[in-house]
Amino acid sequence: MNYSLKSIPEREPKPRERGYTMAMDKGLSVREVEDFLEVAGDYVDIVKLGWATSYVVPNLQKKLDVYRAAGIPVYFGGTLFEAFVVREQFDDYRRILDKYQMTFAEVSDGSLDMAHEDKCDYIRKLSEQVTVLSEVGSKDAEKIIPPYMWIKLMQAELDAGAWKVIGEAREGGNVGLFRSTGEVRSGLVEEILTKIPFEKILWEAPQKAQQVWFIKLLGANVNLGNIAPSEVIPLETIRLGLRGDTFDHFLDLEKPC
Amino acid sequence: MNYSLKSIPEREPKPRERGYTMAMDKGLSVREVEDFLEVAGDYVDIVKLGWATSYVVPNLQKKLDVYRAAGIPVYFGGTLFEAFVVREQFDDYRRILDKYQMTFAEVSDGSLDMAHEDKCDYIRKLSEQVTVLSEVGSKDAEKIIPPYMWIKLMQAELDAGAWKVIGEAREGGNVGLFRSTGEVRSGLVEEILTKIPFEKILWEAPQKAQQVWFIKLLGANVNLGNIAPSEVIPLETIRLGLRGDTFDHFLDLEKPC
Amino acid sequence: MNYSLKSIPEREPKPRERGYTMAMDKGLSVREVEDFLEVAGDYVDIVKLGWATSYVVPNLQKKLDVYRAAGIPVYFGGTLFEAFVVREQFDDYRRILDKYQMTFAEVSDGSLDMAHEDKCDYIRKLSEQVTVLSEVGSKDAEKIIPPYMWIKLMQAELDAGAWKVIGEAREGGNVGLFRSTGEVRSGLVEEILTKIPFEKILWEAPQKAQQVWFIKLLGANVNLGNIAPSEVIPLETIRLGLRGDTFDHFLDLEKPC
Repeated sequence: MNYSLKSIPEREPKPRERGYTMAMDKGLSVREVEDFLEVAGDYVDIVKLGWATSYVVPNLQKKLDVYRAAGIPVYFGGTLFEAFVVREQFDDYRRILDKYQMTFAEVSDGSLDMAHEDKCDYIRKLSEQVTVLSEVGSKDAEKIIPPYMWIKLMQAELDAGAWKVIGEAREGGNVGLFRSTGEVRSGLVEEILTKIPFEKILWEAPQKAQQVWFIKLLGANVNLGNIAPSEVIPLETIRLGLRGDTFDHFLDLEKPC
Repeated sequence: MNYSLKSIPEREPKPRERGYTMAMDKGLSVREVEDFLEVAGDYVDIVKLGWATSYVVPNLQKKLDVYRAAGIPVYFGGTLFEAFVVREQFDDYRRILDKYQMTFAEVSDGSLDMAHEDKCDYIRKLSEQVTVLSEVGSKDAEKIIPPYMWIKLMQAELDAGAWKVIGEAREGGNVGLFRSTGEVRSGLVEEILTKIPFEKILWEAPQKAQQVWFIKLLGANVNLGNIAPSEVIPLETIRLGLRGDTFDHFLDLEKPC
Repeated sequence: MNYSLKSIPEREPKPRERGYTMAMDKGLSVREVEDFLEVAGDYVDIVKLGWATSYVVPNLQKKLDVYRAAGIPVYFGGTLFEAFVVREQFDDYRRILDKYQMTFAEVSDGSLDMAHEDKCDYIRKLSEQVTVLSEVGSKDAEKIIPPYMWIKLMQAELDAGAWKVIGEAREGGNVGLFRSTGEVRSGLVEEILTKIPFEKILWEAPQKAQQVWFIKLLGANVNLGNIAPSEVIPLETIRLGLRGDTFDHFLDLEKPC
């Protein structure tokens, strides 16, 4: 840090299981990746190449090289996995992961109907090859999953080999964990946390109010994802109680008197 | 593309009359233009320098050079044309087009009142000098043009020499083709399409939900405009059925069974 | 300017007391600062490093060097001042200002409760060291300050040595001067202006509709702040009547007839 302030919440050091920040790259240039890492490389833990953008961007290999050189793992968005599966090209998908030397992959079913046993099978298979993040929640705002089912799905996916489970929100932050207005389905989140360990969940929270809500509930070291690259620094200040929204939140701990 | 996926809708190759993507540059630096073209140069067809931003940016000539070297035509936003016309400086405008060796120009009347015959005269004159895009629709949310009139205006402007007609939406996507909420005036669009050929219209659709709506109605190769530079890659994935919003849309065509 | 247009409102030349544009940097890379200044260096007057982002960004000194070389003063957001004060580290704050050779500082009380006399004391002390901008208005949407109190606070802070007073809006533009919808509290602004000189106020106005409202009320040379770097060029066109929103506004002055 550039100067010394008292009563700042302690952040887990990298590599970490808690306090994880996942950013979404939806088409950065190589130079933009370099700029992002100059500013936020110390704060971002993993980068998702949003949905299937990796299919169309012409600079894929070069970007992967830049992230790799900085020690930041990268994975393809779950929609890419689904795009291969729906076309019965799962083996091609596995080859792509090898070709690009990916160490992480996401398994999701946000855009298609898949038996949950099949999803768990994919998690089992892929977790022999890479570290798997699995995502729960539909991209379809009409599909409401009740809390007990979120828990059951998450537990089964962790049991199948997922390293962490992701709570779906999309880039917009308006489905899954959130109402269409972006408001958190807070009862859902609290019920999930009675059963699934805090550090096993990565909450997608692209909107600032959502990030603030999670940090106030779960502290500086909550795992948050779908953060725009330019919002990683603002998020870090919210985690540290250095933006208006959480300014008071961490002061009580050891407030000077 | 970086890997092979089945059942991807076919895109018209460049240069194209259909499936056109027009992006809006509202003040990029030279390096930002280079970054934009590194990522999206294969997908963007034409760039508009938004409204009259070209009047104030200090790097105009340099940016034009970069776009030109990449083979991407550029034009000044229609508001610049109107700014010259309202000041009775139309001849100056024509000289500016020559000075900067512009090959396209936009004729619009979104910010001023102009007799339609006069507008068509401007289209006729300018189309001797450059390729003309003409825009229909007011920037004033209060001015509602009925569907039969949209058709009449569009047809007259094509007859006067416009290469394509643009449906107005502004940078925000909340006027003209859209309600103030951003919702598409769908009856209007469908009625227009009964009379004006699909490939002659470029729909301004800056918001994702608007892009999705047009692609679902008109397919991967609809002409869309006012796309932010950072949204050209996301748009391309929507066109190809590789984002949640259109994931199902193109699969039926040749779905593996 | 790149070409000559009649009836363009005259802008105060830099350095200026009126027509000031304050931009907010919330975590730009060094190269992004260079890009920003290439495009908007002639139009931006001062840059705020938003809230306490300067605590976490690893490139602080390098960025300050780039801004300084371009002759653009920089200051730390008021929340940083508050973060030091609430921890009883005000002397540390003064040392930080010296260490980084800051020539401006912001005094605010948007995130904490502070007796107004204490706030004025801080303004007095800091104005011996740097040029002080002081901010009025809470970041808490629940805390509504009546107009007569805004005036009283502003006058006292100017009397205590503030160079200008800032009307609070946050990065989002939804508190202080604005309703939660972003709508301007117009009666408040008009009443303030009956007592406090126009050029002594810097209005935070991050949203376009807010910028348009102030420019229509107060002219091209109103002081506006919390402008995103990519919006400085768009703002300049609004000031000059070269975007749809203010297209008509300045034409009457010397309209060609």
